Amino acid sequence: MKDIHIILGAPKTEEIRPLIKTEGIVIGVDRGALLAIEENLKIDVALGDFDSVSLHEKKMIEQSKAKVLNFPTDKDDTDAELAFEYALNHFDAKNIYVYNWYGGRIDHLYSILMIVLQKRFETLIPKLKYIATNNVIEYFLPGEYTIDKIKQMDYLSYILMTEVEGLTLKEVKYELIEEDFDQPLALISNEFLNKQASLAFKKGIIAAVQSRDKTE
Amino acid sequence: MKDIHIILGAPKTEEIRPLIKTEGIVIGVDRGALLAIEENLKIDVALGDFDSVSLHEKKMIEQSKAKVLNFPTDKDDTDAELAFEYALNHFDAKNIYVYNWYGGRIDHLYSILMIVLQKRFETLIPKLKYIATNNVIEYFLPGEYTIDKIKQMDYLSYILMTEVEGLTLKEVKYELIEEDFDQPLALISNEFLNKQASLAFKKGIIAAVQSRDKTE
Repeated sequence: MKDIHIILGAPKTEEIRPLIKTEGIVIGVDRGALLAIEENLKIDVALGDFDSVSLHEKKMIEQSKAKVLNFPTDKDDTDAELAFEYALNHFDAKNIYVYNWYGGRIDHLYSILMIVLQKRFETLIPKLKYIATNNVIEYFLPGEYTIDKIKQMDYLSYILMTEVEGLTLKEVKYELIEEDFDQPLALISNEFLNKQASLAFKKGIIAAVQSRDKTE
Repeated sequence: MKDIHIILGAPKTEEIRPLIKTEGIVIGVDRGALLAIEENLKIDVALGDFDSVSLHEKKMIEQSKAKVLNFPTDKDDTDAELAFEYALNHFDAKNIYVYNWYGGRIDHLYSILMIVLQKRFETLIPKLKYIATNNVIEYFLPGEYTIDKIKQMDYLSYILMTEVEGLTLKEVKYELIEEDFDQPLALISNEFLNKQASLAFKKGIIAAVQSRDKTE
């Protein structure tokens, strides 16, 4: 099992390289492939319709050692969905880390955040982590979990992506015991009391978000 | 009926003033009040717990002509929810425009995007518009609509916030006729064929997003 690193093509607002903490397969998605190359990251696979790069930039991607997969512009899947499909079909991934997903078109971001609601990606949910300097998201299927506090992240929020049954939050400032929610809801600005928090629920999909106010 | 302008407190990445196109009531929310004052915008109401401003900055807000409403830090509602509640209870709003909502903590953004799923805000849905330089969102309840193309916005995406029945999209590159969706789903990167597109559906809540790739 390998870690997969997926670098998306949002307008670059932060360095990707320091966010990558583990070895593994690197997939550059469309303009994300170029951004990775510009940071001297070795990419294994580059995929997309590449409508967001110039001919010259496309050549740079082709001259890297990456395996390049070209998709038509008029495809049904978004570039992110293509990358998730590729990861699903080609690797037994341990973790799937996603970078450079925030800061661009809000419709793309909506799509990326909602991707876990698609049945075809259900098996990826427990592996998925969206990484950024001030925002980290993990997704959970029903079960019991401990969540490790990430250094310097001040807030812990639980986003109920679906209706949720039997939600219990412990070792946090605002606890919940066995609560049911019949609608998606964002429970935000909770906080760790210790280095770990405990999450349990019986039905639904939950995103745990660790974040901090932007350091300006 | 008045237009309401709500200025949120995300880290400022763009000028708010040029985005405000109509007269009306201006509500500055927490740090958003300060950002508005810094742009010489006349704010009518400032509200929040003001934990994101310094004492000196708080004084600046108090010395403006705004009515200042202080809420405790340990409240259940987010600052955005407080502003929406205030707008709901004090005005018969024509449109509610929201600014400076993008670019900060992703848990706040999740919460802001999901606010329309809360039953208490249902009546606001047809009035709500999130405004930013490269991203504009409008929300819709079931019905038949024409959507006006915003100048320079290249993409039109429909975010199905809930299950949706009988979705018909016309005058767009990728048309749909009477389709049902049993899950929330982001249908992104559609495009106007003319200056207006037509949207109709029978059940659910839909966000229409107009966006463009960031001009860098």
